[in-house]
Amino acid sequence: MRYDVAIVGSGPAAVSAALTLKLHNKSILWFGSRLLSPKVEKSEKIANYPGVAMVTGPELNRLFRLQAEELGLEITERRVTSILSTRRGFMLQGGDEIYDAKAVLLATGAVSAKGFDGEERLLGAGVSYCATCDGHLYKGRQIAVYCGSKEFEHEVVYLAELAEKVWLFTPYADCGVERKNVVRCTERLTKIRGEDRVSGVMTADGTELPVDGVFVLRNAVAPAALLRGLEMNGPDIAVNRSMETSKPGVYAAGDCTGRPYQLTKAVGEGNVAAHSILKFLAAKEGTQESI
Amino acid sequence: MRYDVAIVGSGPAAVSAALTLKLHNKSILWFGSRLLSPKVEKSEKIANYPGVAMVTGPELNRLFRLQAEELGLEITERRVTSILSTRRGFMLQGGDEIYDAKAVLLATGAVSAKGFDGEERLLGAGVSYCATCDGHLYKGRQIAVYCGSKEFEHEVVYLAELAEKVWLFTPYADCGVERKNVVRCTERLTKIRGEDRVSGVMTADGTELPVDGVFVLRNAVAPAALLRGLEMNGPDIAVNRSMETSKPGVYAAGDCTGRPYQLTKAVGEGNVAAHSILKFLAAKEGTQESI
Repeated sequence: MRYDVAIVGSGPAAVSAALTLKLHNKSILWFGSRLLSPKVEKSEKIANYPGVAMVTGPELNRLFRLQAEELGLEITERRVTSILSTRRGFMLQGGDEIYDAKAVLLATGAVSAKGFDGEERLLGAGVSYCATCDGHLYKGRQIAVYCGSKEFEHEVVYLAELAEKVWLFTPYADCGVERKNVVRCTERLTKIRGEDRVSGVMTADGTELPVDGVFVLRNAVAPAALLRGLEMNGPDIAVNRSMETSKPGVYAAGDCTGRPYQLTKAVGEGNVAAHSILKFLAAKEGTQESI
Repeated sequence: MRYDVAIVGSGPAAVSAALTLKLHNKSILWFGSRLLSPKVEKSEKIANYPGVAMVTGPELNRLFRLQAEELGLEITERRVTSILSTRRGFMLQGGDEIYDAKAVLLATGAVSAKGFDGEERLLGAGVSYCATCDGHLYKGRQIAVYCGSKEFEHEVVYLAELAEKVWLFTPYADCGVERKNVVRCTERLTKIRGEDRVSGVMTADGTELPVDGVFVLRNAVAPAALLRGLEMNGPDIAVNRSMETSKPGVYAAGDCTGRPYQLTKAVGEGNVAAHSILKFLAAKEGTQESI
């Protein structure tokens, strides 16, 4: 199936765009969390969202979920690890599946985690974001794994079943992975090394560990790593007033386009992006979409 | 009193900006309708506003009003007829009062009424938007009045008390003005004539009526007429992603910046404009505003 639009992210910008696109009968492939926005969920009180006075984050998130459900919108929790532009549109890697879409909306939030030194350069040359996709390439070999959140530990276990040895880095303490061939590193991972391919990783104390591959498992993949050649504006995706990125057919909305990091700004941008996507799809199909 | 911000308009973009500015303790001079948005009020059903599912226009407008009232926001219903930029900020003519503000937000909505031929050129040279300000200049003289809505009829009566003769044009039928010196014209007003000053008006059937002044009374004054030299983009106010216009200290948000004419887009832009204004005010005061 070829979807009209793939939406990456499930925060307020994504919700806003999804509502408008669904009401225009577009087929939507929506990647995100069924909870929707962890950031909204953690907001204590939102005072400046017009129409919903002094609301708590969890309550507003609940309203978003109800509204999305009522329209029959569904979310897949597969993590998108790469987007390729093809002649006919876009191919998205979500978990170990490949999906097709005519247009893409990036609503990936503000990327707080800067990639590791060497990560972007060696992506696809020993660096991978997807255990189920690339794990088999490292059967019987030594790898390093950065596991950014407990929810990815099952992927570490999967990798440990294939690899000879796993050097494991986690930003949290209570790691639940217990395997003979997994070594938990207490030093921070600082650098991924290698010329054309990964040759090792460096830790904060200067130790170099020789490895053939590095798996980086974290929620937010930097947009520039998701989609090669996407023009950035510092840490933000560069967009114009129509929320078009530098790649035709790819739009962005919400925190990933820059400050202010505000719920109200995000829903506005999601709405504008949705209308630009409707125009884009109409032009592709040679039909007129009234907006 | 010198206000931090003057907001012109009371639709969703204005509401959004007002909430954020008020929560940052800025003093706000807010021009608009106490009803808030007549356009929202007339919307039957709004399906794509995130957080408030399938809401009627009147209900959403009511939620906006409650939220604004709870924060102590107040609206003055004086019509803004001109904005002058001064060395210290801006002077706004609202009704027959002059107000001072450090920054201005234009949230004037989509201007459906195109000005009359000659209107912008002869503004201030015989063309006026303000009966109470300029009426006295036409004591004992002949004038034309375009009265765009019944709510301005008291201004027509006021002008009739001063002028010798009033040629009255209304786009509606049941005009309630009954004065001996008021002639209701059934032909459409098409053109305002004059070289350096108004010399007459032309009607659709080619009649020329010699007059010394023309009062144009309508709800929406075109932004370019409100504020000389404001850069436009066709019928829209030209803005960048921070909602800055071509005039430093003047911001715009909502339908007046162009399509899509959407509530959700408008609240988003109002939020962004408010944050840009906070930055602008902080820079003016040499302080840091965290946003």
